Amino acid sequence: MSIDVQAVRRETRGVRNVTHLNNAGSSLMSRPVAETVVGHLRREEEIGGYEAAEEAADRLDDVYSSVARLIGAQANEIALAESGSRAWGAAVYSLPVEPGARLLIGRTEYSGNVIALRQLARRHGLQIVVVRDDPHGQVDVEHLQRELERGNVAMVALTHVPMANGLVNPATQVGRLCRAAGVLFVLDACQSVGQMPLDVEALGCDVLAGTGRKFLRGPRGTAFLYVRASVLEQLEPVMLDGHSAVPSGANGLEIRGDARRFESWETSVAGRLGLGRAVDYALALGLDAVQERVARLAELLRNALSALPAVTVHDGGVIRSGIVTFSVRGSDAGTVRAKLADHRINVSVAPLPSSEVNAVLAGKPCAAPTVVRASVHYYNTEAEIQRLVHLLR
Amino acid sequence: MSIDVQAVRRETRGVRNVTHLNNAGSSLMSRPVAETVVGHLRREEEIGGYEAAEEAADRLDDVYSSVARLIGAQANEIALAESGSRAWGAAVYSLPVEPGARLLIGRTEYSGNVIALRQLARRHGLQIVVVRDDPHGQVDVEHLQRELERGNVAMVALTHVPMANGLVNPATQVGRLCRAAGVLFVLDACQSVGQMPLDVEALGCDVLAGTGRKFLRGPRGTAFLYVRASVLEQLEPVMLDGHSAVPSGANGLEIRGDARRFESWETSVAGRLGLGRAVDYALALGLDAVQERVARLAELLRNALSALPAVTVHDGGVIRSGIVTFSVRGSDAGTVRAKLADHRINVSVAPLPSSEVNAVLAGKPCAAPTVVRASVHYYNTEAEIQRLVHLLR
Repeated sequence: MSIDVQAVRRETRGVRNVTHLNNAGSSLMSRPVAETVVGHLRREEEIGGYEAAEEAADRLDDVYSSVARLIGAQANEIALAESGSRAWGAAVYSLPVEPGARLLIGRTEYSGNVIALRQLARRHGLQIVVVRDDPHGQVDVEHLQRELERGNVAMVALTHVPMANGLVNPATQVGRLCRAAGVLFVLDACQSVGQMPLDVEALGCDVLAGTGRKFLRGPRGTAFLYVRASVLEQLEPVMLDGHSAVPSGANGLEIRGDARRFESWETSVAGRLGLGRAVDYALALGLDAVQERVARLAELLRNALSALPAVTVHDGGVIRSGIVTFSVRGSDAGTVRAKLADHRINVSVAPLPSSEVNAVLAGKPCAAPTVVRASVHYYNTEAEIQRLVHLLR
Repeated sequence: MSIDVQAVRRETRGVRNVTHLNNAGSSLMSRPVAETVVGHLRREEEIGGYEAAEEAADRLDDVYSSVARLIGAQANEIALAESGSRAWGAAVYSLPVEPGARLLIGRTEYSGNVIALRQLARRHGLQIVVVRDDPHGQVDVEHLQRELERGNVAMVALTHVPMANGLVNPATQVGRLCRAAGVLFVLDACQSVGQMPLDVEALGCDVLAGTGRKFLRGPRGTAFLYVRASVLEQLEPVMLDGHSAVPSGANGLEIRGDARRFESWETSVAGRLGLGRAVDYALALGLDAVQERVARLAELLRNALSALPAVTVHDGGVIRSGIVTFSVRGSDAGTVRAKLADHRINVSVAPLPSSEVNAVLAGKPCAAPTVVRASVHYYNTEAEIQRLVHLLR
């Protein structure tokens, strides 16, 4: 099954206004997603916020099942959140650790995660170990294996698709090594979910965090967290409220047995329903078909950019994502972005992830130059890509 | 200046459908608030989520100033959040504490907060001390004073307007005592903000948390946190990300100097703009006028209910809020609620707060019966109140 591009474009209002190549930032919502969110807000306006939530209770519950289906998990392993970083942090900060334990991360870990890990490391006396990249720029699984063999590893954290270097990290291999070593594997899937199939069994991860607004095409302020049922009990949330725990015993608290222990009570119900609609939309298209088209469009863009003498493409990896990064000789990335914006082409700018991780670990501002990031989705067309290339030429 | 009730009702779509007396749960959004949220969502749909945020950057920044104005604070003392509990917890969990320190709370503290405090107490070996109520059911300021004199107090936490007993706690007196004792004062204003004027100087609080969806008439999933500038530096957020901190020094992190250190990067921009619009709407009406009308309607309801032989009103306090709690002889609260819902009258049910706090502290489910809660707002009418009373009769 392949994607009916004209049909998905008819369901995407934004394509009439912009050439949106900022899907790794926040993609264009589809009409069904936007109508779901707006529809629920209208209902809140008409009958009250709690009353509307009560009316939507079954559909709200279905969101957990949809997210679970998207990643091959069980509904009780899913928590909803407002930000991928918060979802990731809710699990990671809950990890029981001993002073001296080591945290293994990739060189292209999302920099916000690295800041969180630095705080954790400082708080508990942990050591952050950066696993090298292999010659393709992916996490070096042989180096990871050696570090795992050295022992005393509390966690391996990997960003599945780094925010700006075009590659997909070999998460399945990492998961296999972590399982063999009995080490918790935390996968940040914020940039991969929605552009490719994900299966937590195949990936072998214990924790997975994803966001709604990027390739899933959900509303802003939505995210989810997966925590494997078998490790849930080990992770006591850093913060609790009346939703995540009930009183129990003279000094005790009984924390929910499912992943919703990581949630807080109040939330945008409209946003969550929109997230569920976005997941269902992606599932209906089929994530294999999505990945096929995204990868093809991205490769088309890379090839066309590489043919331009003034342009350098920075992407690495063996398997590639929908994220294309490049620089233009004689123009800084911000200028390129602004010029493209004048032509209603949306791209973004970012430092190369490994430079950013280096900067965080060195405790210095990132000195490396930023690159232009053009991230494609299945609703983009070959003509849009030609338009970008034409303007750059 | 008094409230033009017909004008505010024309701007409130929901009043045509329901008699909404669940404003302490979540009130009806005004049309300007709903249009602000929907308008921004449409813009995200049309040009992209990040692009729409960039376009709205100034208005987003104004939200902080609006919230600051609402409570007499500075914009740099305000953080935005998705839930009042999370906002409250972001500050409270960050408090540096020594084992053995005492946490003083009121007997009508919001039960979700008490669950959080139990976790904190267990984690750090703290002691929770419950200050007695005075004969009016308010926090007993003399008892509080004696407990403060005993020393070793890390924090006083008070819920300004408890969720179900009609009263307004004497927060200003509590603030004065805390200041004199040099103890941090944390005020949960989720049920007071939007129904009465608040001023952090007059209240003398160091931390104040508020929610959008209740009397402020903002969207669900919105909240704010105030932290006094002079105590910000003492509070290291429990979790960080790339928004709240930057790398600095060989082992260090530089955490933002303003209250946004408690925020996470990703959020519903539409929701935040809606919160700002709701604050501006409340400020334009005038919080004195709002309080005057809310108090008058609530008192009208209490008097009418008290005249019914089968009804008992449970409200205490010297100063009263817009929350009216009662029970009906021979009918449990849930049945009353359901019957009223059949007539499109929205009320809610709740346990009396002090029973709930007792249950949490005893580590047991709350055994006390729940009561019916009818919470009025300025857009309610005398006729709506008569309708409720008539049906109960």
